[in-house]
Amino acid sequence: MSDDRYVPQDLIEVDDELMADIGELIASKSDFLIKNILSDLHPADIAHIINRLEFGQGEYLFSLLGVEDQSRVIVELDDDHREHFLASLKSDTLTDIVEELPTDEATDLVADLPREKAEEVLEELSAEDSSELQELLQYGEHTAGGLMQKEFITVNRKETVKKAVQAVRKAAKENPGEQIYAVYVVDDEDVLVGSLSVSNLILLSPLKRIYKVMDADIISVKTNVDQEEVANIFKKYDIVSLPVTDFAGKIVGRITVDDIVDVITEEASEDILRLGGVAEDERVTTPPLQSLRRRVPWLAVYLITGLITSSIVNLFHETIQSFVVLAALMPIVAGMGGNAGTQAITLMVRSIALGEIDMAAARKALIKEVTVGLLNGALVGFLAGTVIAVAYGNVMLGVVMCLAMITNLFIAGLMGTLIPLLLKWAKLDPALASAVLVTTCTDAFGFISFLGFATLFLSLLV
Amino acid sequence: MSDDRYVPQDLIEVDDELMADIGELIASKSDFLIKNILSDLHPADIAHIINRLEFGQGEYLFSLLGVEDQSRVIVELDDDHREHFLASLKSDTLTDIVEELPTDEATDLVADLPREKAEEVLEELSAEDSSELQELLQYGEHTAGGLMQKEFITVNRKETVKKAVQAVRKAAKENPGEQIYAVYVVDDEDVLVGSLSVSNLILLSPLKRIYKVMDADIISVKTNVDQEEVANIFKKYDIVSLPVTDFAGKIVGRITVDDIVDVITEEASEDILRLGGVAEDERVTTPPLQSLRRRVPWLAVYLITGLITSSIVNLFHETIQSFVVLAALMPIVAGMGGNAGTQAITLMVRSIALGEIDMAAARKALIKEVTVGLLNGALVGFLAGTVIAVAYGNVMLGVVMCLAMITNLFIAGLMGTLIPLLLKWAKLDPALASAVLVTTCTDAFGFISFLGFATLFLSLLV
Repeated sequence: MSDDRYVPQDLIEVDDELMADIGELIASKSDFLIKNILSDLHPADIAHIINRLEFGQGEYLFSLLGVEDQSRVIVELDDDHREHFLASLKSDTLTDIVEELPTDEATDLVADLPREKAEEVLEELSAEDSSELQELLQYGEHTAGGLMQKEFITVNRKETVKKAVQAVRKAAKENPGEQIYAVYVVDDEDVLVGSLSVSNLILLSPLKRIYKVMDADIISVKTNVDQEEVANIFKKYDIVSLPVTDFAGKIVGRITVDDIVDVITEEASEDILRLGGVAEDERVTTPPLQSLRRRVPWLAVYLITGLITSSIVNLFHETIQSFVVLAALMPIVAGMGGNAGTQAITLMVRSIALGEIDMAAARKALIKEVTVGLLNGALVGFLAGTVIAVAYGNVMLGVVMCLAMITNLFIAGLMGTLIPLLLKWAKLDPALASAVLVTTCTDAFGFISFLGFATLFLSLLV
Repeated sequence: MSDDRYVPQDLIEVDDELMADIGELIASKSDFLIKNILSDLHPADIAHIINRLEFGQGEYLFSLLGVEDQSRVIVELDDDHREHFLASLKSDTLTDIVEELPTDEATDLVADLPREKAEEVLEELSAEDSSELQELLQYGEHTAGGLMQKEFITVNRKETVKKAVQAVRKAAKENPGEQIYAVYVVDDEDVLVGSLSVSNLILLSPLKRIYKVMDADIISVKTNVDQEEVANIFKKYDIVSLPVTDFAGKIVGRITVDDIVDVITEEASEDILRLGGVAEDERVTTPPLQSLRRRVPWLAVYLITGLITSSIVNLFHETIQSFVVLAALMPIVAGMGGNAGTQAITLMVRSIALGEIDMAAARKALIKEVTVGLLNGALVGFLAGTVIAVAYGNVMLGVVMCLAMITNLFIAGLMGTLIPLLLKWAKLDPALASAVLVTTCTDAFGFISFLGFATLFLSLLV
């Protein structure tokens, strides 16, 4: 963020110099100068500044903002600062902020409040706002209902284009910041039957009946659809907003693309972190002790699997005793299996996340991965076997390595595909446990196959 | 895709039954019936059908579409089908398709054509279209210039709101499918000075001067900004379109959020696949032999590092010979280091991708990860040491395990943070090589520390 390639034309850039200036101004309580700087900044940048300040300094800076800016800043804070602010702000300030926010963000904020404070805010809000939030709070956080907002424009199919334009005008006046993409068309029962884009509204004759000019091929989701699926719909159809309906087809909200951008980033982060054995809410900024608490469980799981595989190795201690070189070579087989298994898992987990896997695709993938595993095993096994046969002047040792590699890379392909599929089928997140399960298999089978073949051919080896 | 939760109201769903029907209709050449089905489908769904058909059948189906649908289908095909279609379609058909496409997608398509065909298409296009595409073709594929399109609306700051509305009308008429979000305001030198959202245009009095009502706090990027950075701007500022300027500040294009949704997905896929040791262009559907070609290089790298670490183990063959249990236990230390290192890498790579890492954050992250490594090592080492001391009735063996674990988890934290940072600093992709470098370190140090401490304390062990 430190070069000048995309500095907004009339916005100030947040750099170390600015941070130092702000620190001094806070220390000297130069409110006027601070307000002057903040007025030139985008709320996302103000949030970025607060994220870099101590809590106390951040609160002070936040208190200098008007409520509109406060509302736009608070939704951009990082988790730690957000949590701190929600705990420290008074419920009447929070109520003012909630009133400024679009309903989807207001709901997320209220959901994050301590229970009592949330109830206070819901009581202080107008009856209409309060009931909208309470409706939205019911939905699962990661569903279409949890993503949608109540700010959407509808018009009855029997009305005229003029009426739709008026509705857009009214909405634009009430929420000047809100992006309006479309007017949704409903019948007398509020059932969604079509849509009209705002740029088309400008084109159409004001006297035309809506049902004659609307786009009737409208894509919508029900409230209970998972957010990952919602994101895949946005991607597939290249849309910027998506109406949400209840089970009777009545429109109850809309989801906008800026929330989907966040969902895609969040889901990708979750998959990446889980595949790497990190809790999905850990960040680089998470304090060491909290990181420890989040990571030790994973390491403990790995420790248990490590102890299990080491007891497998122990079964072969006589073989190793009579030919110690085996101890040096066995990690290669296990490690290669782990790497090949990780390749297969990675591909499966990503495909599942992108919604590319149905039964037919799963069958194909399994056959493919097993084939690739065998071929990889033969190729890499031949390579490894040759190098080892030459290095140790022992052809049989090379043969054992090659056979073990083929076996283990076959297991890697099989398990690397099957385990994510089984986890998905059991409605668990494949990103979460695939890696530990597959590497346990490839470690175990790596040692068993290598030391097993070695034991079998021991008389030829030594 | 097989349940009815988000079936678009008037669209048909693509399921196995529909695929079977289409297969039969193609076989019997029932063009009329096929066209009838296709007319009810969204182009993205038609592309989905073609992706599931054999190339020949897909081409047949494609040939039944009008050129407008063809253009919308071809950009949604998967890589294999797209490549096949681009090779098999004649240049005049391709020219018709290119004429229908928005300039950004037209550019991507021409860039993927064989050289000669691309030149033919560029010659057959109108002079204006051709020069626009040639301009766009200059930019790097993964930069703002490579993402932008030439379809954007500008109005001079001295004009009236009426003129801006007319410009929107004209654009909406010319490209009925195009989403129009904003009108960009320029000065006499075409330098970007502001913007006006379409929904605000509806509100404003037609006679107002643009410069009096425009939003002057406009965010823009230069053509050479990397697409990952562009995506981070969209995320940070919750925007749906972003003007692109040249180095003089003149507007030369705009980027829309639907392309950013694809960029975010693509960048996440790339990171996930690279972290997993898979080429970023491999898919579940990639044929086995191509997968093999893409994966073997990685496995070969791992093989080499495996051979190196095995030679390290060999250095300690006398120690192992005199106490074979060490051979069974040493993979635990190496494996735990690998897992802890992967945790650190994963967190760093994700943070770097999200643009969260500057120098200050890097320093903090390094201190944190080293601390976490030492603490994790102490905790997990104590656990592992205790279990092993009890299991083998050998306290000293537990002490060796514990010391080795602390050493290796320290190395894991250090290398897991440093290596991604160094790769980033060297302008390489941290996702690409971090894993192999870090696990090589943790394997090597795992064996060295465990077998080293064991050698040191051998007289107390046996």
